[in-house]
Amino acid sequence: MTGPRLTPLAASLPATVPFVGPEEQERARGAPFAARLGANENLFGPSPAALDAMRAEAAEVWKYGDPKSHHLREALAGHMGVAPQNVLVGEGIDGLLGNLVRLLVAPGDAVVTSQGAYPTFNYHVTGFGGVLHKVPYRDDAEDLPALIDRAREVGAKLVYFANPDNPMGTWARGVDVTAALDTLPDGCVLCLDEAYTEFAPEGTAPKIAADDTRVIRMRTFSKAYGMAGARIGYAVADTGLIAAFDRVRNHFGMTRMAQAGALAALHDGAWLAHVQAEVARSRDVIAGVAAENGLRALPSAANFVAVDCGKDGAFARAVLAALVERGVFVRMPFVAPQDRCIRISCGPAPEMAVLGEMLPQALAEARENT
Amino acid sequence: MTGPRLTPLAASLPATVPFVGPEEQERARGAPFAARLGANENLFGPSPAALDAMRAEAAEVWKYGDPKSHHLREALAGHMGVAPQNVLVGEGIDGLLGNLVRLLVAPGDAVVTSQGAYPTFNYHVTGFGGVLHKVPYRDDAEDLPALIDRAREVGAKLVYFANPDNPMGTWARGVDVTAALDTLPDGCVLCLDEAYTEFAPEGTAPKIAADDTRVIRMRTFSKAYGMAGARIGYAVADTGLIAAFDRVRNHFGMTRMAQAGALAALHDGAWLAHVQAEVARSRDVIAGVAAENGLRALPSAANFVAVDCGKDGAFARAVLAALVERGVFVRMPFVAPQDRCIRISCGPAPEMAVLGEMLPQALAEARENT
Repeated sequence: MTGPRLTPLAASLPATVPFVGPEEQERARGAPFAARLGANENLFGPSPAALDAMRAEAAEVWKYGDPKSHHLREALAGHMGVAPQNVLVGEGIDGLLGNLVRLLVAPGDAVVTSQGAYPTFNYHVTGFGGVLHKVPYRDDAEDLPALIDRAREVGAKLVYFANPDNPMGTWARGVDVTAALDTLPDGCVLCLDEAYTEFAPEGTAPKIAADDTRVIRMRTFSKAYGMAGARIGYAVADTGLIAAFDRVRNHFGMTRMAQAGALAALHDGAWLAHVQAEVARSRDVIAGVAAENGLRALPSAANFVAVDCGKDGAFARAVLAALVERGVFVRMPFVAPQDRCIRISCGPAPEMAVLGEMLPQALAEARENT
Repeated sequence: MTGPRLTPLAASLPATVPFVGPEEQERARGAPFAARLGANENLFGPSPAALDAMRAEAAEVWKYGDPKSHHLREALAGHMGVAPQNVLVGEGIDGLLGNLVRLLVAPGDAVVTSQGAYPTFNYHVTGFGGVLHKVPYRDDAEDLPALIDRAREVGAKLVYFANPDNPMGTWARGVDVTAALDTLPDGCVLCLDEAYTEFAPEGTAPKIAADDTRVIRMRTFSKAYGMAGARIGYAVADTGLIAAFDRVRNHFGMTRMAQAGALAALHDGAWLAHVQAEVARSRDVIAGVAAENGLRALPSAANFVAVDCGKDGAFARAVLAALVERGVFVRMPFVAPQDRCIRISCGPAPEMAVLGEMLPQALAEARENT
């Protein structure tokens, strides 16, 4: 018997996944993590108003969510200074990226990203048969001019650029992004992933006209708003590209709790400011812990810090493994030379204390074994 | 300037959506519905234990959900009498259908469904470039032998069959489904949509071996479990097909509240029994209201009832419009002759009272105007 006949594309895809979740690592090691600092989650949590809104909305969970996310979309339009038709609410940036790739990338189409950048974007491009062209980081930052040059060379339909960058935490000035857009080849879209923008210095987010067809920006409630487990993000672009998502998206895909929570979170500026301050403080704590151990923390505009372990990737991997063994969940960049670093998410004092206690032990173990 | 270059497939897709949501209709009419009976939602609501679990889990919303939905998957495997590797948790049946179609249907591939069956399935097939072949209902029921015959004729890779059926509420016996599977052409997968199975008579769900590669069954927490707004469903199939989803799905796509709520709901058999009894009672109420108005209710194995308005589609559409105008949200079948009916979801006494009050007025208005 033949069994299911996968499409040639589906049959060709690897069975790998972009990330192993921390719960799976916990099950494998048979113990929970003492410090969950590996997924750039927001340990300072969501706005209490957002929590209240989600809990209240649970009573309405028997209803499907509004496929238009009408009220949230209106509020986001105000927040971004655009029209509601420039905004699409989706199942986190991961979901939005999948649909963006599906709209633009046919098998064989060229797509440009940085070597070592967000693997879930690559997962989607591969998943739709696109051909990835990767540009190295320059000085631990995504190299936007080089990305655009490569896009021109290969005729890319889509370029991925995260600002601030993950996993390094580096960032570009908004004015430089705006200027770079003018060099983007005709018919190429820049996907500007701004997942961490709320943690970045003033001026990091570029000014982009609502009707600019060259760029789509993606934002999320998973990071600064502390709602990763609610799966909600949004895209902002020209009305034509936003409308195109209606051809492919899962219209009834949003949960009601996410819609209600995001709306409340967006209105709680005081909580956002609190989180921003806590994250800034925690970045300094991580840098301090690194320095105490003779390591250098890279400057970061995000809610995580890349810590240079001072040697090669094998050494950093050994440090990471020793931390994980000691109950500290962290991750690290995938490619050299960025993989000399480990990436540590910000968190409150108890988790920072665990990090401070375990990092010297992990370093000692790594130095013994490498 | 060229702007974004959609793929030829994306550019060819219509800008239509499978359904207009009730919130959008409420905004258009400027008033909320008094009786929300159009989307086969469960007005009796979720298990209180599920509500508690969702509200408790909200405190953990800063964490991404477990991409494996490990605990829920284990519980569902027990519930279905299969191994966890036979089960996939996904963002409702809508999300699971999209990924199933993506795995199996390349542009030009043949897919078979019933004329007037679930439009969201058709939306996905069209969205991936598949070619839909539609078989008429027979006696207001999906005609499984005819679907399979057509699949053989056109070399279909996928056949959609809902049991119980939506929108008519009719159903096939499980033993007949099992027997029909033996006639399915080699290499063709039957997608058995069992969204409403918990409302159906004993014996409606066929016995299917865990390693049967001919069928994938889809179930949901949106209907009997009252969690439509949490977006969670599951697929059960041979391990090979289940594993294939890992190549394309949004691994971190599930919300934590949905995962926690579904697990609690699955364990609350008493609440499910309560809902089943209430739905059965409500089906009788709807049939009674229909009879009082000289209309015939079709027997239903789901949480809705198709009511034959006794004339053609134009008349039923007029009845529906008059109900909507009066604050009663209902929907109706899309094609003749099933479109002589309107489809009314079950609900508690207050909503049934609104229906009882408004149906005579709606019928009178429709009789005047058609």
